[in-house]
Amino acid sequence: TNPVFTGIETTVFETMSRLAKAHNAVNLGQGFPDVDGPDDIREVAARTLMDGPNQYPPMLGLPDLREAVAESNRRFYGLEIDAQSEVLVTSGATEALADCIMALVSPGDEVVLVEPLYDCYLPLVRRAGGIPVRVRVSPPEWQLDTQKLRAAFSERTKAILINNPMNPTAKVFSAAELQCIADLCREFDAYAICDEVYEHLVFDGAAHRPLMALDGMRERTVRIGSAGKTFSLTGWKVGYVTGPARLIDPVAKAHQWVTFTTPPNLQQAVAYGLRKDDSYYQDLARDLEAKRDRMARGLQALGFSVLPCSATYFLTCGFEELGLGDNDVDVCEVLVKQAGVAAVPVSAFYGADAPTGYIRFCFCKKDWVIDEALARLSAFL
Amino acid sequence: TNPVFTGIETTVFETMSRLAKAHNAVNLGQGFPDVDGPDDIREVAARTLMDGPNQYPPMLGLPDLREAVAESNRRFYGLEIDAQSEVLVTSGATEALADCIMALVSPGDEVVLVEPLYDCYLPLVRRAGGIPVRVRVSPPEWQLDTQKLRAAFSERTKAILINNPMNPTAKVFSAAELQCIADLCREFDAYAICDEVYEHLVFDGAAHRPLMALDGMRERTVRIGSAGKTFSLTGWKVGYVTGPARLIDPVAKAHQWVTFTTPPNLQQAVAYGLRKDDSYYQDLARDLEAKRDRMARGLQALGFSVLPCSATYFLTCGFEELGLGDNDVDVCEVLVKQAGVAAVPVSAFYGADAPTGYIRFCFCKKDWVIDEALARLSAFL
Ligand SMILES: CSCCC(=O)C(=O)O
Ligand SMILES: CSCCC(=O)C(=O)O
Repeated sequence: TNPVFTGIETTVFETMSRLAKAHNAVNLGQGFPDVDGPDDIREVAARTLMDGPNQYPPMLGLPDLREAVAESNRRFYGLEIDAQSEVLVTSGATEALADCIMALVSPGDEVVLVEPLYDCYLPLVRRAGGIPVRVRVSPPEWQLDTQKLRAAFSERTKAILINNPMNPTAKVFSAAELQCIADLCREFDAYAICDEVYEHLVFDGAAHRPLMALDGMRERTVRIGSAGKTFSLTGWKVGYVTGPARLIDPVAKAHQWVTFTTPPNLQQAVAYGLRKDDSYYQDLARDLEAKRDRMARGLQALGFSVLPCSATYFLTCGFEELGLGDNDVDVCEVLVKQAGVAAVPVSAFYGADAPTGYIRFCFCKKDWVIDEALARLSAFL
Repeated sequence: TNPVFTGIETTVFETMSRLAKAHNAVNLGQGFPDVDGPDDIREVAARTLMDGPNQYPPMLGLPDLREAVAESNRRFYGLEIDAQSEVLVTSGATEALADCIMALVSPGDEVVLVEPLYDCYLPLVRRAGGIPVRVRVSPPEWQLDTQKLRAAFSERTKAILINNPMNPTAKVFSAAELQCIADLCREFDAYAICDEVYEHLVFDGAAHRPLMALDGMRERTVRIGSAGKTFSLTGWKVGYVTGPARLIDPVAKAHQWVTFTTPPNLQQAVAYGLRKDDSYYQDLARDLEAKRDRMARGLQALGFSVLPCSATYFLTCGFEELGLGDNDVDVCEVLVKQAGVAAVPVSAFYGADAPTGYIRFCFCKKDWVIDEALARLSAFL
């Protein structure tokens, strides 16, 4: 069996969800909302399921959904995307990442990654034969050091892969950081693979700006979005990639031999959802912002040192003051088993030599669930 | 960009479906039924969509679906499968193939393939760094030559990948062929990856026998099935892999970084569907058998030489007598553009040096659609 996939761990999100279930814990580990997205979107999906056809849709995705993705790029970022040749629908953002990496990276190519990193990035780059080059950012601001980033680029760099807004750091890349990345991509003629699944989950009036929108990046960037995150339907596994036709073409060729296509009824419903008016997107962010505040206040009161959070589903916290030791994996194990609250150790987002002083809580939960988790933590501590 | 995915063709099925649409042709190219599968299965899916949750299900698949897959292996083949550790749910059989190949094949490993072959096999093996070793079968019987097969195995053989029942040849592997494959797999300590998506579409009382059921194969075989084919819902993209835990484990690790999981409402509905009683499966095969006969009679009457067909959705035909030349690609182009009927050139199922004398018609269509296609062909010829 292939060593990339043998003897390795089950993803930490799955592991924590299994532990949460086994111990009847409140699951603040894996990132998913506990209230499903809009009824009307689900009704479109259910109706299309009954009306049919439930047969193979076009390999690139339903034309209507590709059009809706293009419209959404125009509405939110002023990006002009050709729905015919510059959009690909995938079975979730994870598949989109797999397709992009398989299509753009060849054996021996270097890929620059910002660490901490989402845990599929390293195995996907390795399975494609690529060589990961990691650049680390550090708490509390998780700011990209431009000198370190420059040092990571070389003649062998094929691409940079970033997650913006970023999980688990909950940061939105600043204009200066994006400019630095763009300059290096142009200088080294590298692609950018941008995992932007949290694009609409941004708080405090902060603005998410796609790297693709910067000068010279339109032609070298593939940008990944996700209906799961945008519509609180993480189980649907509908994602989309936008990019120039010369990159979407090989990415689509990878896709046609990975899943080929995505259920047509879910695609139809996502096309409907993407056209919701601005208030939907504003309410989504505002609701999450309030949950973030509720959770942050509670964790702070318990003695956690809560790091800044401008986006995503996640709050990252130090636990030094709590007397639980200094190892995030141990702390998460104690919390899930003894406190009845599942979190995720941030060290799981590192390739090696991980810092061990932080754990991540997911806050896209009902208010009473957040309160219950806080009460359990309080009782335990 | 990676050469495996650059400058290559869009899959022939997609290309022919696009041409069919552009020319208003009857689409007998890509393999999908024009009547959606059972209402009650779709109702379960629609209800689960509305009831929720629509969030990430377990990475291996819903426990209930894994249980249903195990039950179905017992019912149809007497195979004892542990639902916990020996079943993985995937986003369609194509993803299952990608996962199996990525997980089991390492760079430099040889993979034996029977040609003609389904068109994702070669790029998936190559993208994994594997070296395809093709063994050709020939019409009209498409019988496996045991000498040629033995010659394809070597110390470097990691796996054989077979499609049984086989597309586009519409054959079911005989007991003797399966025994020969099993003997070689054991002798050379190779895995078998068995794409058995047409397992329930077998005609004339012929019996499909999984390679996995043969002596010594249980421990070295991964077997792929598909709800799309079994329930006439090809757009759903729900597949499943069964195999020994030591192989399902790395395959699941590949899966967790390819799609991670599959929409829970579709999984729930497939679990329901798999438990339908034997008459559902018998009716499915009998209906298709009648369609096969209708199409075969019609094509024969028009002068096509129709090859035997014991399974699948497909009839393969020679066209020598028709005065359309001797090139299957040209014939398909003429037929879609001028006759208004889309078929698929069988040469698309070869890696190189393809025979060009055969085209494939898909017959899982309404009777009047079959008749209309025949009438159009008749008018054209
Ligand atoms: C695919 S499961 C992981 C969900 C997620 O994005 C996270 O928890 O970080
Ligand atoms: C994934 S599209 C191809 C459908 C099919 O199995 C075929 O037409 O052979």
